[in-house]
Amino acid sequence: MATNKEELSLLGVIGSPFVCRVQIALKLKGIEYKFLQENMANKSELLLKYNPVHKKIPVFVHNEKPIAESLIIIEYIDETWNQNPILPSHPYQKALARFWSKFIDDKVVGAAWKAFMTVDEKEREKNTEEVLEALQFLENEIKDKFFGGEEIGLVDIAAVFIAFWVPIFQEIGGLRLFPSDKFPKLYEWSQELINHPVVKEVLPPRDPVFAFFKARYESLVASK
Amino acid sequence: MATNKEELSLLGVIGSPFVCRVQIALKLKGIEYKFLQENMANKSELLLKYNPVHKKIPVFVHNEKPIAESLIIIEYIDETWNQNPILPSHPYQKALARFWSKFIDDKVVGAAWKAFMTVDEKEREKNTEEVLEALQFLENEIKDKFFGGEEIGLVDIAAVFIAFWVPIFQEIGGLRLFPSDKFPKLYEWSQELINHPVVKEVLPPRDPVFAFFKARYESLVASK
Repeated sequence: MATNKEELSLLGVIGSPFVCRVQIALKLKGIEYKFLQENMANKSELLLKYNPVHKKIPVFVHNEKPIAESLIIIEYIDETWNQNPILPSHPYQKALARFWSKFIDDKVVGAAWKAFMTVDEKEREKNTEEVLEALQFLENEIKDKFFGGEEIGLVDIAAVFIAFWVPIFQEIGGLRLFPSDKFPKLYEWSQELINHPVVKEVLPPRDPVFAFFKARYESLVASK
Repeated sequence: MATNKEELSLLGVIGSPFVCRVQIALKLKGIEYKFLQENMANKSELLLKYNPVHKKIPVFVHNEKPIAESLIIIEYIDETWNQNPILPSHPYQKALARFWSKFIDDKVVGAAWKAFMTVDEKEREKNTEEVLEALQFLENEIKDKFFGGEEIGLVDIAAVFIAFWVPIFQEIGGLRLFPSDKFPKLYEWSQELINHPVVKEVLPPRDPVFAFFKARYESLVASK
């Protein structure tokens, strides 16, 4: 559907798991695009114009048509460029991929962030429990190398948050969010994912991301 | 894709907006199915088997394959039965439909419920404000008779919550959640929607739904 005369850009921030999801999808498809670095403390006119509802990144812009919400962007990319499918073709498998991606957003992302971004012991524990419960479902769900089978698919892309970001939160916060002994299959999957050639190329370098979240955490502790 | 030998069932509760969404989709497609009435105070083995993750309704079961989450079910139905399309065919229009449906779930459903299900004045106000802000975006978004154009589509189905349930909450709770003078286009749309022949046939009767929520609200006030 796409021609060579495409104007493609991605408004984002390096280090955001949601932006990284879209970058993985675009790299899997082999699509070139312009990365427009946003400053979330001083949002650009372009971001406010293209995502007036949420004013958040990522926003993918295809020939001046903007799309927000990482999972919606990925479905758009998959429907627009056919090579290296990200979603399965059968409606039932597709529904399952959507279900588990939504599950990660609803049950893992918020709880992991809340467990990390608090100094209240009860809040840490409650949210850690929620993450562990959610990860147990995912542990039981992995049947192959990836959630998508032999190749990475929508759920793997959504779950890059678990493979790359959650271990960073775990280490900085001294939390037990993603213990490898408790989730051996999920741990193995996470190593496969972050070492997948496409994902590896797109992931932000760990050290600066670690330093960024460590600084946020320390300022939280200091303000206690 | 579907043959005549289908086994179709919907696990649900009459009066649930999420179940109603799926019922509208099935009716639009002209699909016959078995409605399995659940008791949420005493969930059936079938529900626990078919939705072990969330243990919630609706669950749509197609030849013993279960799908949960109303919007995911609707996309599955639309992809499996081609007649009377619910989502647009173009990927960009499809992305927009998904965006606004998710917006309704993220920004309207929770806030409207919280505004209604509290006696704390500040919580009522805060959540009412959130609903009004979200509805303003939807007011600006209506261009035709329906969000889907001349026919109802995914966003209209998702928004049946606004057309039918929110006015009930508003009346019982004495709230200003969906004032028709503030949102004339959305109000007109809501009347078109609830009087659409398919929606009208599927909507639960208003009186018992009203009585059900009134009883819940009164027990909340009494327990204050």
